[in-house]
Amino acid sequence: MAVMSEEVVAELERALPAGRVVRDVDVLASYAHDEAEWAPYGRPAALVRPRETADVREVVARCAARGVPVVARGAGTGLSGGANALDGCVVISFEAMNAVLKIDPNERLAVVQPGVVNDDLRSACAEYGLWYPPDPASAPWSTIGGNVATNAGGLCCVKYGVTRDYVLGLEAVVGRGDVVRLGRRTAKGVAGYDLAGLMVGSEGTLGIITEITVRLRGTRAAERTVVGYFDSLVTAGEAVAAVATAGIVPSALELIDRHCLRAVDEWRNMGLTDGGDVLLLGRCDAPGQAGEEEADAMLACFESVGATWSARSTDAEEAEALFAARRLAYPALERLGPVLSEDICVPKMLVPEMLARIERIAGEHDTHIANIAHAGDGNLHPLMITSPDDEPARLRAQAAFERIIDEAIDLGGTVTGEHGVGLLKRRGLEDEAGPVVLDMHRAIKQALDPAGIFNPGKVFAVDGPLDS
Amino acid sequence: MAVMSEEVVAELERALPAGRVVRDVDVLASYAHDEAEWAPYGRPAALVRPRETADVREVVARCAARGVPVVARGAGTGLSGGANALDGCVVISFEAMNAVLKIDPNERLAVVQPGVVNDDLRSACAEYGLWYPPDPASAPWSTIGGNVATNAGGLCCVKYGVTRDYVLGLEAVVGRGDVVRLGRRTAKGVAGYDLAGLMVGSEGTLGIITEITVRLRGTRAAERTVVGYFDSLVTAGEAVAAVATAGIVPSALELIDRHCLRAVDEWRNMGLTDGGDVLLLGRCDAPGQAGEEEADAMLACFESVGATWSARSTDAEEAEALFAARRLAYPALERLGPVLSEDICVPKMLVPEMLARIERIAGEHDTHIANIAHAGDGNLHPLMITSPDDEPARLRAQAAFERIIDEAIDLGGTVTGEHGVGLLKRRGLEDEAGPVVLDMHRAIKQALDPAGIFNPGKVFAVDGPLDS
Repeated sequence: MAVMSEEVVAELERALPAGRVVRDVDVLASYAHDEAEWAPYGRPAALVRPRETADVREVVARCAARGVPVVARGAGTGLSGGANALDGCVVISFEAMNAVLKIDPNERLAVVQPGVVNDDLRSACAEYGLWYPPDPASAPWSTIGGNVATNAGGLCCVKYGVTRDYVLGLEAVVGRGDVVRLGRRTAKGVAGYDLAGLMVGSEGTLGIITEITVRLRGTRAAERTVVGYFDSLVTAGEAVAAVATAGIVPSALELIDRHCLRAVDEWRNMGLTDGGDVLLLGRCDAPGQAGEEEADAMLACFESVGATWSARSTDAEEAEALFAARRLAYPALERLGPVLSEDICVPKMLVPEMLARIERIAGEHDTHIANIAHAGDGNLHPLMITSPDDEPARLRAQAAFERIIDEAIDLGGTVTGEHGVGLLKRRGLEDEAGPVVLDMHRAIKQALDPAGIFNPGKVFAVDGPLDS
Repeated sequence: MAVMSEEVVAELERALPAGRVVRDVDVLASYAHDEAEWAPYGRPAALVRPRETADVREVVARCAARGVPVVARGAGTGLSGGANALDGCVVISFEAMNAVLKIDPNERLAVVQPGVVNDDLRSACAEYGLWYPPDPASAPWSTIGGNVATNAGGLCCVKYGVTRDYVLGLEAVVGRGDVVRLGRRTAKGVAGYDLAGLMVGSEGTLGIITEITVRLRGTRAAERTVVGYFDSLVTAGEAVAAVATAGIVPSALELIDRHCLRAVDEWRNMGLTDGGDVLLLGRCDAPGQAGEEEADAMLACFESVGATWSARSTDAEEAEALFAARRLAYPALERLGPVLSEDICVPKMLVPEMLARIERIAGEHDTHIANIAHAGDGNLHPLMITSPDDEPARLRAQAAFERIIDEAIDLGGTVTGEHGVGLLKRRGLEDEAGPVVLDMHRAIKQALDPAGIFNPGKVFAVDGPLDS
C-alpha cells in the first residue's frame, strides 16, 4: 500500500496545479480525523484541496488505478469517525470548493459546491427570502458536502425533515473516475433508481460528491418559544410524549439535562441551573393564531406532566440565548474531557423509557452520562464523559455506549439518528440491520466501487462481519 | 423458459394453499398488463395471489432457483407498462394482502400491506384525524404497493411531496428469497444506506415489497380554491410561472386544456367548456388569514397574465366538482381511443415554453394532443389520442411522444415526473441519465438481483443499451 500511495501522490503532484497536493506531516495530522475522539484513525499519504471537479476526477482515477483509498471530508465536525483517515489514503478536503453557484428563487433551489458552510448557505438564501432548513448544531462550521454525506439532521428537522429531504440532485465522481449527474433539478422526477438519495448518507463510501442541488423553502413565520423545567429526565421525556399525543408538530423540541446545563453555566455563567434540573425548549412556527394555539397547547403538555416551572418566552433575545445554550452544550462538555457521543433514535412515545434506561446504564457502568436530545423526534444524544487518561473509566464508558445501542434496538429504535455509522456504530448497524441487509450493503458497495477505494471500512467492514 | 416456468408453477401449486395459484387463461389475460395500452406485454405462466409474506418468499425462492421472472402488481393502474407480464413469468397480485395493519396516532405512522387501496388508507387515517398525503389521480383504485413501486405523485404533491417522502420502512422479499426489513419506524435514522428509499420507485426490479410503513400528517386546514380560464395553453403556463415567481406554494395547481374539458363535458355534461379554453385550478391550505392572503395572491397572478375569467370559488361543492372533473379527464379521453400518456416534468418557469413546444409538436406530427398537468410542479401530461386501428396515426403519435421527451430533456427536465419508466420511457431514461448512470443502474440490479428475476427489462434493458 505504502508504495502505491507514494506513486499516486507523486502522480498527483505532477498532474495538479501547484499547492493542491499537500504532504506536510503536521498539516496531514490535522486532517487525519473528525471529532469522534474515540474512533481510530490512520496516517494519510497526502491531502488534496481540489478547486474543481476535474481535480477530484484526477484523484479518483489515479487512486482507482492503484487501489489507494480516498477519504473525503468537509469541516471534520463529524461525530462517528466517518472522515477519519486510513493509512496511506488520499484525503480530499473541500475547503476551497466553497462557492454558492446559484440561488434560483423561482425554482426555489440552490446549487452549491460541497465545501460551502451550512450557515453560509443559510445566509445566502435569506437574502432572497428563502430558507435552507437542515440545521445541525454544527451549522456554523460544518459543510453541505459533509451534511449530505452523513444525511445530517438538526433542530428544526422534527418538523422540516433532514438533509435527505432537501437534496434534489448531485454531481459526483464515481467508479474509476467517472463524473456523473444524479437526481434532478425539477420539483418531481422518478426516472430510474434514486441514486442521489442513495448517495445521501452513504458517508463517502460510494463516490465523491462534487456539487449539490438543494430544494429551498420560503422564509417561515417567526417562532414562538415554550420553556419548561422538570425535576427528572423521565418527566421531561413524558412531556415529549405528551406533545406527540396532543398531535403538536413543534418546529423544535430540545432537551438539555442538568449535566449539560451545569457545564454551560460553568463556562458561560448563564444561570441555567437556577431554573431546575432538566430543560425542555419547544418552538412552534405555525403562522398567526394557529401558532399561538400550538404554543399554548405545548405549554399545557409541559404542565400536565408536572413541570417544576414552565412558561412561554415572550422575550426573543432570551429565547435565542436559551437555544444558543443548547448549541453550546456539546463544546461545554468537551471542556471536561473526551466525549463519546451517542445518537440513538427511538419512537417518540418511548423517549421516557429510553431516558430511564440510559440513567440505569450510567449507574450500572459507573459512567458520567450527560444528555442532550432532539427530543421531539426521539433522537437522543447521551454523552459519555471521562477524565483524560483514565483507562478503566474509558472502558466502562465504552461498555455503556454499547449497552445504550442494544437498548435502542430493543425499543425498536435505530443506532444512529443523524450522525452516521462511521466507525463507532459499525457493530450497532450489524445488529440493527442483520446479516442479509448488511450483505445488500456490501453488494451495492462492490457494484458501485469496484476498485474498493471510497472510504473503505466505514459504515461496515467490506469483507464480512466485523473482525477488525 | 417455458419448461422452467411449468416446473415452478407445479411446485407452487403443491407448496401454497389451494386457490393462491391461478392458471386459468382468461384470468391470466386480465393480469397481463397495466393501463399503458401502447406497451408490449407477454403471457404469464401463472398468477399468485399471496395472503402472507411467506407466500411471496415461496414464489421468489422457486423462481430464483429456476430463473423464472417475477412481476408484482397492485391494481394495474400504471401508465408506463411497469407491471406488464413477460412470457412465462409468475405474476404476483397483492389484492388479497390489503390490510391496514396498524395506525399509530402518537408516532404518526401506518403499517400496511401492499394491496391496500390508496383511498382506503386515506379513509382509515382520517378516523384518527390523520392524513396520508400522496394522492395520485388513481387513488380510488391504485394500491400503496404500486404507489411505492412507482414513487407515485399526485395533486397535493406540489406542496406535500411524493410517496418517497412518506415511506419510512419496508418489508421486502429480496435476492433468492430472503425476507428483510429496510428503513425504520423512528422519525429519523441514518443507519446504513437508504435501501428503503432505493426500493421506492424501483418498479419491482430489486425485490418484492410485502409491507410498508408510512409517515402520516395531521389533518390540514380546509383548502381555498382559485379558478382561472385562459385563452391558450401558453397563457395558462404563464400563470403557473407567475405563481412560482410570487413565492406561493399552492396545495394544488392543476391545468386542464380544452380537449380534456370537452371530453369531460361530452361524457358528463358539466358545462366546463362554457367558461373558456384552458382551466387552471389552484388551491391553498395555509390556515387562517395566511390562507386568505395566499388565495388572493394566486388570483392576482392569474389576472396579471390575462385570465379570460378568474375568481375564488366560495362554493365548496362547486370546487369539489371542478377537481372531480380534473380526475375524470383521463378516463374521459380514454373513451375517445387509445391514449398514450406523457409524464414529463420541467422547471416551473419553463412550463409555458414546454407547453408551446408541445403544441408545435402536435402540429408537426399531425397528432391530437390533450393536456392535463400538475402544473404547479412542472409535471405535464400531454396525452396523445388516436383512433383505434389507425396505424399511421399511431406512428405519428409515437413520434410526437418521443419528440416531447427530447424537448423535456432539452429544457433541463425529466422524462418521467411520477408515472415511472416502465417500458415506455426506457429510451428516454437512457438519454436523460447517460451511459455511465445507466451502468450504475445495471450494477445495482445485478448486485441485488443475482438471479435476474425481478421484473427484468423494465426501467432499463438488463444487458446493455436498448436493443430489444
